[in-house]
Amino acid sequence: MPCTFPKYTHPDFNQNIFNNAPNCTTQKVQNDGVAPENFHSTSIYPEYFKVEGEWILPSGSRMDCVPLIDENNDIKIVEFRNLKVGDEVVVGRTEDASEGIYLHKNGFKPKNMNTDNFTFRGGRSRETAFSKDYDRLYERLKHDRDNGHIVWVLGPAVVFDYDSRKALSSLIEKGFVHALLAGNALATHDLEGGFLETALGQNIYTQESVPNGHYNHLDLINEVRRSGSIENFIKEGNVKDGVIKTCIENNVPLVLAGSIRDDGPLPSVYGNAYDAQDAMRVQTRKATTVICLATTLHTIASGNMTPSYTFKDGNVRPVFIYSVDISEFAVNKLGDRGSLEVTSIVTNVQDFMVHLKNNLVI
Amino acid sequence: MPCTFPKYTHPDFNQNIFNNAPNCTTQKVQNDGVAPENFHSTSIYPEYFKVEGEWILPSGSRMDCVPLIDENNDIKIVEFRNLKVGDEVVVGRTEDASEGIYLHKNGFKPKNMNTDNFTFRGGRSRETAFSKDYDRLYERLKHDRDNGHIVWVLGPAVVFDYDSRKALSSLIEKGFVHALLAGNALATHDLEGGFLETALGQNIYTQESVPNGHYNHLDLINEVRRSGSIENFIKEGNVKDGVIKTCIENNVPLVLAGSIRDDGPLPSVYGNAYDAQDAMRVQTRKATTVICLATTLHTIASGNMTPSYTFKDGNVRPVFIYSVDISEFAVNKLGDRGSLEVTSIVTNVQDFMVHLKNNLVI
Amino acid sequence: MPCTFPKYTHPDFNQNIFNNAPNCTTQKVQNDGVAPENFHSTSIYPEYFKVEGEWILPSGSRMDCVPLIDENNDIKIVEFRNLKVGDEVVVGRTEDASEGIYLHKNGFKPKNMNTDNFTFRGGRSRETAFSKDYDRLYERLKHDRDNGHIVWVLGPAVVFDYDSRKALSSLIEKGFVHALLAGNALATHDLEGGFLETALGQNIYTQESVPNGHYNHLDLINEVRRSGSIENFIKEGNVKDGVIKTCIENNVPLVLAGSIRDDGPLPSVYGNAYDAQDAMRVQTRKATTVICLATTLHTIASGNMTPSYTFKDGNVRPVFIYSVDISEFAVNKLGDRGSLEVTSIVTNVQDFMVHLKNNLVI
Amino acid sequence: MPCTFPKYTHPDFNQNIFNNAPNCTTQKVQNDGVAPENFHSTSIYPEYFKVEGEWILPSGSRMDCVPLIDENNDIKIVEFRNLKVGDEVVVGRTEDASEGIYLHKNGFKPKNMNTDNFTFRGGRSRETAFSKDYDRLYERLKHDRDNGHIVWVLGPAVVFDYDSRKALSSLIEKGFVHALLAGNALATHDLEGGFLETALGQNIYTQESVPNGHYNHLDLINEVRRSGSIENFIKEGNVKDGVIKTCIENNVPLVLAGSIRDDGPLPSVYGNAYDAQDAMRVQTRKATTVICLATTLHTIASGNMTPSYTFKDGNVRPVFIYSVDISEFAVNKLGDRGSLEVTSIVTNVQDFMVHLKNNLVI
Repeated sequence: MPCTFPKYTHPDFNQNIFNNAPNCTTQKVQNDGVAPENFHSTSIYPEYFKVEGEWILPSGSRMDCVPLIDENNDIKIVEFRNLKVGDEVVVGRTEDASEGIYLHKNGFKPKNMNTDNFTFRGGRSRETAFSKDYDRLYERLKHDRDNGHIVWVLGPAVVFDYDSRKALSSLIEKGFVHALLAGNALATHDLEGGFLETALGQNIYTQESVPNGHYNHLDLINEVRRSGSIENFIKEGNVKDGVIKTCIENNVPLVLAGSIRDDGPLPSVYGNAYDAQDAMRVQTRKATTVICLATTLHTIASGNMTPSYTFKDGNVRPVFIYSVDISEFAVNKLGDRGSLEVTSIVTNVQDFMVHLKNNLVI
Repeated sequence: MPCTFPKYTHPDFNQNIFNNAPNCTTQKVQNDGVAPENFHSTSIYPEYFKVEGEWILPSGSRMDCVPLIDENNDIKIVEFRNLKVGDEVVVGRTEDASEGIYLHKNGFKPKNMNTDNFTFRGGRSRETAFSKDYDRLYERLKHDRDNGHIVWVLGPAVVFDYDSRKALSSLIEKGFVHALLAGNALATHDLEGGFLETALGQNIYTQESVPNGHYNHLDLINEVRRSGSIENFIKEGNVKDGVIKTCIENNVPLVLAGSIRDDGPLPSVYGNAYDAQDAMRVQTRKATTVICLATTLHTIASGNMTPSYTFKDGNVRPVFIYSVDISEFAVNKLGDRGSLEVTSIVTNVQDFMVHLKNNLVI
Repeated sequence: MPCTFPKYTHPDFNQNIFNNAPNCTTQKVQNDGVAPENFHSTSIYPEYFKVEGEWILPSGSRMDCVPLIDENNDIKIVEFRNLKVGDEVVVGRTEDASEGIYLHKNGFKPKNMNTDNFTFRGGRSRETAFSKDYDRLYERLKHDRDNGHIVWVLGPAVVFDYDSRKALSSLIEKGFVHALLAGNALATHDLEGGFLETALGQNIYTQESVPNGHYNHLDLINEVRRSGSIENFIKEGNVKDGVIKTCIENNVPLVLAGSIRDDGPLPSVYGNAYDAQDAMRVQTRKATTVICLATTLHTIASGNMTPSYTFKDGNVRPVFIYSVDISEFAVNKLGDRGSLEVTSIVTNVQDFMVHLKNNLVI
Repeated sequence: MPCTFPKYTHPDFNQNIFNNAPNCTTQKVQNDGVAPENFHSTSIYPEYFKVEGEWILPSGSRMDCVPLIDENNDIKIVEFRNLKVGDEVVVGRTEDASEGIYLHKNGFKPKNMNTDNFTFRGGRSRETAFSKDYDRLYERLKHDRDNGHIVWVLGPAVVFDYDSRKALSSLIEKGFVHALLAGNALATHDLEGGFLETALGQNIYTQESVPNGHYNHLDLINEVRRSGSIENFIKEGNVKDGVIKTCIENNVPLVLAGSIRDDGPLPSVYGNAYDAQDAMRVQTRKATTVICLATTLHTIASGNMTPSYTFKDGNVRPVFIYSVDISEFAVNKLGDRGSLEVTSIVTNVQDFMVHLKNNLVI
């Protein structure tokens, strides 16, 4: 089945409310990292700003940031901490064009919904039927492999299991992974698997704890630190297989964000959380599909940095976000934080990965 | 890979503690359904009873029941409510042979365990590596299809989803299901799927709520009741496909236990919980593998009725119990209630079913 | 703070759509337990039926049942299985008055909602702020103690803990419990606590497993069965304290529904699920507040039998349903099954009980 | 009831295995942040090192670090990343004294356990009886308020709720909090509550979303950044109440660790995860009780930095760790990562906080 997207329709700017609307106004930043009062803040939806009589939809948006008008009259969407003295920040907190700002909630034509007063099973839970969601995901990934930018956001459970780690490696080889965002733990245990066949000292296939296995991840980290970089460590021939090795061999960008629970860390892990954010956003700005697995922290972080739309060949298309976790709380949290356009699947991520491999890798 | 079982070793009855032990003693039941004081109660482990100088291991055991010695000097394991006046109940609450009762905890030779003071990841959770558990399960099911009795204990989520319902139907057709234990809801929504393509009014493939869909399960139940039986309803040609239809066509025994949350119920559902127990135990007594999916109630109920061992061709072999659920609490509860010999897998049952189909049905 | 209820407003029956509407029509039942084709089925909302020119709102409604018109032109809401040959069942599947049936969704004036395009935290989860919900619950319980009918629906965890069991006993003594719906397990482990100070063999205060404690619940059940009834067993002086004893001493009706996971059962447990339903519905018909704790099965069952409104002194008032469980899935499931008017609180039921005692019992 | 601790017993060093054991040996660090091969790594248990004939138990231990012998022949427990060229790292991977290293697993005399073959309810779950755990916790906190160092590790849910935020503030005022470890989100939403009475735009008491409430946390962050520090912002009179204000007024040290999901961040949040670790460890080294609530990330991080024992007035005493969360997975994860000496309580943290206030603050 070919992959079809919801079509995006711009507002009809010939309407009076748009024609009569003023240009949006700005205030200058007085202190680095501090927005002027009454700053406008972005949401996940498409928002248009009237600049010199034109309604502009910015690219690379994300929620909870401020819009700037730069010297070319372009709109830039910037985090508060990245504001610089003199930046021209759009002010105003209406979204109905009256201050030159318009939020366009239903640009992607909604499907017709059953409007019965009384229906069952509106929520998403372990009991939701996921067959069609899977089929649609397979189509989208096949499409976006060649025509998009697929960003994966992963917790360590994905590499704790033999089949899952292998499935993900295959997907990387076959071009379904354009960027991988994760933490020190995923890289550590994946490399531990390729180096010593364990994850946290437990054999990744047999689940047996090997003797003195609690040294394994520490030995791995220590050896990589001695090598100076993950790349060197792999070049030295220490790593048989795995996700990190496959990413590096296939030039898939890795963003590894450090956290307070890390051992090590491995070289190239971002110790500073906000540097990590900047590196992650480089990927989410380009994203057409984002797949978040088994990590509440990175899922929320990435979800917050991802808009609901992107530009592709001059057209506006939706960005698909998948949130896959064993817990309803985790998959629904992204929606509850304002990132509404999410398909949540409640399952074990290992099984999820094996399904993807079975359906995408021949 | 061939399926190999842990080998069972009887205690060495030449030891003095066994030779010197007395025969076990009994007391007569005075009131139907009431055991004599100091009754012995069974566990999930193999227990031997000394009768006329012989140590006997009963067949068809289960936990929390009382052992009787019948007129043939056989041991029968009986629920309290099924005791009859005059039954000879074994009394005594030791398990060390001193009263003619011996519990044999380690008959299935345990594998050598890593005995480090300090290891990680001893529990079973969403982060456990399940690849080997799956592989071993596939082997066991292939073996037991022809040489055992595979009992499935299912919650309704298994039939809420198109792929999962189809996967289970295939497994039934291919002989991997020797009995199916479930409730009114599973049968209702599976038949609703075969009759109207919905589950609780939601299309089982597209997830869309159909207009007035909240009538669908009520219409289905009402029509089956009008037909007089599920079999008649299917014979009339109303059911396109599904788990129940496939069971009936393949002579797989169905035990449908009623509950207080039922609509209907469908004909042939046991209204009385204890009649349902008796019907379920007919299957669990014969079980060699029990697979429990997405139902806490039926899982605990069936687990309680299933011993850790069974006789096959005169030999003692283990009974394998699988508890599959999205919640650690649910999968671990069976163990926490005393049914220790359980492999728990934390996942979405729909994905579990599709995996089984992919690996067992060619 | 005094307890105030949302006020109920009947539809304005002077409108043309009501005046011009026909009386609702009926069909006769041909077979016991089978509804005529095109039967109307009830929802949780108030539904009016036009009979001899009058719009009637039935009392004692519940979802997924059929309305009958009896010989007095009253509307009765009846389960399918309780239909008798000759019963006059209302037919028609519209709810807009055009067939003499009108569903009134917004009779309880809704509060004004924030209608921002973009808000956070719309769902109910572990992170919801519950302070106001608790305060409102305290007020409602104080009100309904003297002016309502408070039905408690309880899982066994409520009596596994010393403080929680004591808190519930106090609430019963102080009149906050008008009916208690539970299963065999709650009664068994509560009585085990009063008899032997354990629950499933574990001391309910110290959590320590007592020697041979796995006999405790079996001994308790066996002794009660020997006594002939729970009442006799208590009269014989075997039970020091607990929920069941306090209910019996305070004439609080107990409905104990059997299930397939029961040991025993205790005398007076309903073995037949549908007899249990009938006994439960006697209580939920009268309910003004229903508190469901830590039992998915009984919560769904009771929720399905409880309407969103009831009559009190000739007026229509809301029925408040609380669903309290540690799992978002469990608390939200009631809503997902169509019982929408539910306040869900995600917590440990033991802590919930202690809060109630601290705020209601002086 | 007075608070009594398990008494610690040192090994009997007069035994031959200790007398005959060699001194432990060391290797010099060659590169900053890289340990020598065969480094010894610490666990959560007490470990003794033989140095110049003396068996030394280090203070301020933690798992997954390396022991150094410093110039005073003291043992220091150091993270890998903090190793410096020339440091003398203890090598050897045995723990039985044979290399001068001895792990003492059972120094705190274990209570006698029931050793029945067959018991129920060994795990910790929502169904565990917590009354005694609470009582013991109250005693320990009363003791450690004056004689210990109580470290709190908190997720943002604690300040999302009116009662919970107030309860925690009271405990700070009354001296039960000696350090607070949290993230940017807790501080942000607590200050948002004191500034605008909302958390993420939702009123913390009524749960209602206020108009344009999604600006509230951004306004708060922006204003604090403008003020230059949290302290300044509070001094300016912007914050009515709350946890952060109470900590600052009571000189309770705050460690706020940044993460990739942060907005802002607030001033004084550690952007660098490893600087944050160092600041957290300053507190956990001194800890006698650690209470971790509703944050998997910070709980694991802090748990990893906390040993099972500490020195108090020259004696060894246990460090008590509490892990409180609504999810069995979360509370048990700490144990599954090797931090075994944890009391887990499965509940809503808001209810937990209110219990503590009710029992500790008069």
